[in-house]
Amino acid sequence: MANKRIADGLAAIDELLVTVVDSDIETLHDASVHILTSGGKRIRPQMALLAYLAAGGEEIADVIPIAAAVEMVHTATLVHDDINDHSLTRRGKATVHSVWGRTFALLTGDYLFTKVYELMAPYGADYNMIMSEACTRLVEGETLQAYAAKQGTIDRETYKRIIALKTASLFEASAHMGARLATEDENTIASLSSYAYNLGITFQLVDDILDIIGDPEDLGKPVGNDLLQGRGVLAVSNGLDRRNDARTTTVADVAVQDRPDAIEQMMANLRESGALELVRLQAVESAERARQALIPLPPTSAKSELLSLVDLVLDRHK
Amino acid sequence: MANKRIADGLAAIDELLVTVVDSDIETLHDASVHILTSGGKRIRPQMALLAYLAAGGEEIADVIPIAAAVEMVHTATLVHDDINDHSLTRRGKATVHSVWGRTFALLTGDYLFTKVYELMAPYGADYNMIMSEACTRLVEGETLQAYAAKQGTIDRETYKRIIALKTASLFEASAHMGARLATEDENTIASLSSYAYNLGITFQLVDDILDIIGDPEDLGKPVGNDLLQGRGVLAVSNGLDRRNDARTTTVADVAVQDRPDAIEQMMANLRESGALELVRLQAVESAERARQALIPLPPTSAKSELLSLVDLVLDRHK
Repeated sequence: MANKRIADGLAAIDELLVTVVDSDIETLHDASVHILTSGGKRIRPQMALLAYLAAGGEEIADVIPIAAAVEMVHTATLVHDDINDHSLTRRGKATVHSVWGRTFALLTGDYLFTKVYELMAPYGADYNMIMSEACTRLVEGETLQAYAAKQGTIDRETYKRIIALKTASLFEASAHMGARLATEDENTIASLSSYAYNLGITFQLVDDILDIIGDPEDLGKPVGNDLLQGRGVLAVSNGLDRRNDARTTTVADVAVQDRPDAIEQMMANLRESGALELVRLQAVESAERARQALIPLPPTSAKSELLSLVDLVLDRHK
Repeated sequence: MANKRIADGLAAIDELLVTVVDSDIETLHDASVHILTSGGKRIRPQMALLAYLAAGGEEIADVIPIAAAVEMVHTATLVHDDINDHSLTRRGKATVHSVWGRTFALLTGDYLFTKVYELMAPYGADYNMIMSEACTRLVEGETLQAYAAKQGTIDRETYKRIIALKTASLFEASAHMGARLATEDENTIASLSSYAYNLGITFQLVDDILDIIGDPEDLGKPVGNDLLQGRGVLAVSNGLDRRNDARTTTVADVAVQDRPDAIEQMMANLRESGALELVRLQAVESAERARQALIPLPPTSAKSELLSLVDLVLDRHK
């Protein structure tokens, strides 16, 4: 991060995230700090911060609580997701529920949600509506994903709807709030919101590809987890090759002891099915839409950072 | 509820609770409606509504979303509590997780939290701060309770702190917000907040007594659940009779097949230990503090309702 203002902003967000979870109930404090300092990419706070600057904002301190709040939403959902997915590691560290148990993980996620609310309270009704809608969309996306995976009915349309709800909505809201704080110009706000929405789509598509071909060491978590849950890129292979086993077999059909082999086989099938290339193509397309959305904005260092972020998201390995 | 305005207000709250959970993700909608229409006592919305009227509020529609929001907070925590407690029934109906499973119950609780946020967004920063603080206290209380029960270190001081955090805080916030919406007079706001705080303490003490001596049919849930979780009145027996087994034995020490007998025995011990009488005495005292808090207020039908509510809470059997 070349720009000192941006670097300082991100440092202030990191600091606020830790100071706001100051509960004297030790478990809540410890579990919250554990997950908040586990080396997240902070991409959603960057959306808020950079959108604010790209829209002409000058008082960086004004946007810090919003930027911290969007990371807090994301973190709360990670803690709850890890319970539902039985994940043991996240960002190379033990998950909250694997250290503190399921009851405390559930409560820690709830606690982090209350802190989102605390961080956002000082902003007006407009911002709180944007944020509450994004939170609702996020939970809807997670629910649709769990439902579709359970029913085995996940298809490409549902997959697109899931990633829009569970990932792109919060990216969009982050930039929307950041931009609105800096300007009243609705075109600028719309450009930055559209940028972030499309970057969110790109981010999730790449995430799902990394679940199949990523290096578990780089990722800090096991690969194949989405397959295990019957979601992710699996959906994209539907209809791509009707003879392909990956289309209909879900891991739930396989005996527990055979699952590692079954996942290995499904991953190999997916790699060969052309599904990954299709997802990659969609990621490239949404990345391009993100770039296009920025065209109307004047050249600033924040705009350059936003453009660099597109490449980073597209080419990331972790 | 003799007063038609109050009855109409409560009906409007019920309606809003159901219309706001309008997700087109069917599971979220169905599970939310299931729990929201399961016959809750709506005591927290009554706090908001009656405090608003007792403080001189005249536009009942203004307070309806706040009143719905406080019930929504309570409902969200019920759904998550029932997961953690493995409870199968609540208000005589199946719990969300026993119908939809743990994953969807967790997401439904999260969804209801996002709806709290949506209902509160239109109010200003002051109200959102009061609400976010109450939500934080509530989660802290639940966590402290789970922690203390797990450690087997629950004592009377911890017990008092738990019920203040997990129950009285939200009662207090409900009345605080309702009153503040109606008046700028800080004395009136403080009186109504103090009333509600003390009524919340009373409510929880009676709840914990009913867990020992209540009729499961009336309650719509099994009794002895708090004992099973190592909490509730059990704490109050600490130090009351050092020879009493209830003081140190927790159900966790007992083999699963022997637990029904063990709980029966602990309940009998508690009934004989004098702990219930002590809790009852505390409930009577906090009820009296609630009544005293209302003295400065002018006589209104809302004030009469608030006074009646004290008796109802103290004498309830379910």
